Amino acid sequence: MSPPSLPEGERVGPRAAATERVYRLEELARLLQAQLAGPGELEIRGVGGVDDVREGEITLAASGKYLGKAEESPAAAVILARGLNSRKPALISDNPKAAFGIALGLFEDREQPPEGVHPTAVVAKSATLGQGVAVGPYCVIGEDVVLEGKVAVHAHCVIGRRCRVGADTILFPRVTLYEGAVIGARCRIHSGAVIGADGFGYAAAQGRLLRIPQVGSVVIGDEVEIGANACIDRATTGATRVGNGTKIDNLVQVGHNVTIGRNCIICGQVGLAGSVTIGDGVTLAGQAGVADHLSIGEGATIGGGSGVMHDLPGGHAYSGLPAQPHRQHLRLLSALRRLPDLMDELRGRGGRNSNSG
Amino acid sequence: MSPPSLPEGERVGPRAAATERVYRLEELARLLQAQLAGPGELEIRGVGGVDDVREGEITLAASGKYLGKAEESPAAAVILARGLNSRKPALISDNPKAAFGIALGLFEDREQPPEGVHPTAVVAKSATLGQGVAVGPYCVIGEDVVLEGKVAVHAHCVIGRRCRVGADTILFPRVTLYEGAVIGARCRIHSGAVIGADGFGYAAAQGRLLRIPQVGSVVIGDEVEIGANACIDRATTGATRVGNGTKIDNLVQVGHNVTIGRNCIICGQVGLAGSVTIGDGVTLAGQAGVADHLSIGEGATIGGGSGVMHDLPGGHAYSGLPAQPHRQHLRLLSALRRLPDLMDELRGRGGRNSNSG
Amino acid sequence: MSPPSLPEGERVGPRAAATERVYRLEELARLLQAQLAGPGELEIRGVGGVDDVREGEITLAASGKYLGKAEESPAAAVILARGLNSRKPALISDNPKAAFGIALGLFEDREQPPEGVHPTAVVAKSATLGQGVAVGPYCVIGEDVVLEGKVAVHAHCVIGRRCRVGADTILFPRVTLYEGAVIGARCRIHSGAVIGADGFGYAAAQGRLLRIPQVGSVVIGDEVEIGANACIDRATTGATRVGNGTKIDNLVQVGHNVTIGRNCIICGQVGLAGSVTIGDGVTLAGQAGVADHLSIGEGATIGGGSGVMHDLPGGHAYSGLPAQPHRQHLRLLSALRRLPDLMDELRGRGGRNSNSG
Repeated sequence: MSPPSLPEGERVGPRAAATERVYRLEELARLLQAQLAGPGELEIRGVGGVDDVREGEITLAASGKYLGKAEESPAAAVILARGLNSRKPALISDNPKAAFGIALGLFEDREQPPEGVHPTAVVAKSATLGQGVAVGPYCVIGEDVVLEGKVAVHAHCVIGRRCRVGADTILFPRVTLYEGAVIGARCRIHSGAVIGADGFGYAAAQGRLLRIPQVGSVVIGDEVEIGANACIDRATTGATRVGNGTKIDNLVQVGHNVTIGRNCIICGQVGLAGSVTIGDGVTLAGQAGVADHLSIGEGATIGGGSGVMHDLPGGHAYSGLPAQPHRQHLRLLSALRRLPDLMDELRGRGGRNSNSG
Repeated sequence: MSPPSLPEGERVGPRAAATERVYRLEELARLLQAQLAGPGELEIRGVGGVDDVREGEITLAASGKYLGKAEESPAAAVILARGLNSRKPALISDNPKAAFGIALGLFEDREQPPEGVHPTAVVAKSATLGQGVAVGPYCVIGEDVVLEGKVAVHAHCVIGRRCRVGADTILFPRVTLYEGAVIGARCRIHSGAVIGADGFGYAAAQGRLLRIPQVGSVVIGDEVEIGANACIDRATTGATRVGNGTKIDNLVQVGHNVTIGRNCIICGQVGLAGSVTIGDGVTLAGQAGVADHLSIGEGATIGGGSGVMHDLPGGHAYSGLPAQPHRQHLRLLSALRRLPDLMDELRGRGGRNSNSG
Repeated sequence: MSPPSLPEGERVGPRAAATERVYRLEELARLLQAQLAGPGELEIRGVGGVDDVREGEITLAASGKYLGKAEESPAAAVILARGLNSRKPALISDNPKAAFGIALGLFEDREQPPEGVHPTAVVAKSATLGQGVAVGPYCVIGEDVVLEGKVAVHAHCVIGRRCRVGADTILFPRVTLYEGAVIGARCRIHSGAVIGADGFGYAAAQGRLLRIPQVGSVVIGDEVEIGANACIDRATTGATRVGNGTKIDNLVQVGHNVTIGRNCIICGQVGLAGSVTIGDGVTLAGQAGVADHLSIGEGATIGGGSGVMHDLPGGHAYSGLPAQPHRQHLRLLSALRRLPDLMDELRGRGGRNSNSG
């Protein structure tokens, strides 16, 4: 039978990846380490944003900007930034966004392969699987692979020989780990990600491009997230490294021999060329690029679409193409807004206006 | 046996994805809603561009620019924009590009999995498959999935639990739908696309990055095309939405909670950050980027490589980094072409030229 | 059992993709076509970069810049650019980078599927497999496919009907070839690459976007490398072509009907829109983009992040957005560094500073 096509508006039923659990507001206060401002016995059945929260759910007003929407929403309660007041029952938090994240986690119910190895998976005899490991349909796991306890490998992942995956790490469907990749504990690697493909290295010889074999590895720390279809290349020799706690978004390119520090945020479609070094706590906004062999210091922030063409010291914000200190870039943008009028004025004054373009 | 390697020039035989059907020119005129200018009984055996058309085929001259090549080509006939004249038998059309598309469709013969479920596919008992559904080798289809009538799922697709795919939609090989994704009817989703991976959201807490669980969904309308290795993330809560008729090219990144309207054209490697809103009929050219939470109005056009840093009203063209009205950007580019000479001239005049860079 | 998590520092054991072979220095001199400067009988057990080379291995000092590190390293010997001198046993080369590549190749030991067809692979009866072909688990190979001698197809590749793959080519895991794709000999196509997906072509008709069927093909030459998750679209009609010896990095987008010449270097995340023509020996640095229907002449070099908006003659370097001759772009950047001060000075002088932004 062919079920009728649903009108677009009705196409989302219950949250796609959430349960029907119920928590009392006082329980949530404790779990979110928030201050209870309302009836502790109030039952909360889910979590929603101010635009999509439903009756019986709790929502978020992380700043006054969202308070009005939260008040008008059907939410049963609201997570409030300290200093805000609501007519609704509330949980007051010093870190409302984190509290919202904890609340979402309480209701999250993500699809996981069941513990054990699916009969269709091809697992080498020499592979070592820790307790509670789950391997989904059609996975291929090579010689001498080690999967530590509770690793979850979704359908269609391919793990090359001698890879090692740390405890509680999740590989979503269709992840490739080339041979020898080392992944830490509690990582999440999304569908289509490719870890350990060859670095892009060639030498010109006799009018041809001679491949430089890439015999190094990739070493990913703990609690790293790697986005869908992201690529992290193996090193020529040595290792390409990603530090603990770093989060990498979809379609990011990390070249061979790159070193990324801890707790960095690498947004969608960022590109890091070969041998780049990124310090701890660096943020690279979407589509930013860094040329090969450059360094970005600890805590630096690089604006979206920026192109880093020189080493950048840590602790500051940079933007532009080439990237420069953000305030300097803003000053340039302001000058550029006035430039066309200046040019016309000078031309009017009989100023030269030869065209070098 | 090892067949001999072919010389590069001979490596394309018959059109890779076309049949050997034959149509009479008068039939084509009717099917393409074009005006017949030539012998109706002329047999047409295929369709080709002006550079690759073969004897017995029909080609296209959508403007005078291509008429010469069409005339010199071995084509048996030509689809002409009204107002052009050809020595060859012709089909005169008010929308020659659309007529060319219809003609190509008549000869198109794309590989599809045969109706039914391949014995190697793993399909949950609770999944509902409509009439005429085709599921290829090694597909994995989760609990409570609904595939409406005539859905074609090519080899190696992974469809998470509770996904719903509308009638006549094609999933090419190696597509991942995370749990709960809703795809409309008559869509085409290309190989490697990932729909419903986690949005990229974190909260800083105790010097670490706390994951914000992404429990929302993705809702794709009807007649949407999604390119190879494109990524469309699930929403934190609520849904990431793509409207009917929108076309998304390869390697595009669509962040969580984005809303894209109807009949938009999103070209290769475009990136839309979280919570962006794109109106109906918007075009984003290749490698353009839009920062988070911004809106682009109905019918706007964004130039290639542009970076949208502010909300943009609909109905106009924009370009540049940051994106500004296109005419204004052209005026800036013209001023920039003259700027180096001006600077030298001012220096010559003894103008200050301190360097703030 | 659950093996203990290793401290990050210990996470790389022996080179992830290298053997334990041993060569005498005099053998290496012969194989690398380098001049022996040291004891010929010295045994070399591996190859490493100056930062990661180990005892018993040979390293590289391609220029004086790296000589100090090489000297201080535990390396047993060093590949030296002619003109440099080392206290260590050395191999002196006129092309030290190429010599280093040859040395790496001697020790490289990459995982390959064993010769023959894995029992889980689904291979059409009409497919032709040459001598020594290796097909890994869960591969799907369509009707009338030809795999020439010694082609290696890793796990989970999907090869559509009528594809042809030249001798000694390697398809790494999870590669998709759409129907009719033609791949040359000795190519390397990395995991997640998609060759032959539909070009992105539509015609506006009655307020909708009508798909232009893509019935053409893709033709890849010999010794081409294609990176992870790269996309090369099939042509509308005719063929999208990549010339012999061209190297394409990860996440590159090649649109329909593009022609790329021989021995080009196309770096990560580059985007080529439809019908672009790239001459032989062109280099496009990371994240560069080229607008549709443009041509770039033989031997041109395009800087990272540049946007090509006009045809560019060969033999020169270009950069910027829009791309212009590199020297001209540097002159513009230098003028831009001085522009904000000039604007302030003019304002001080009472110059107009109306804001057109």
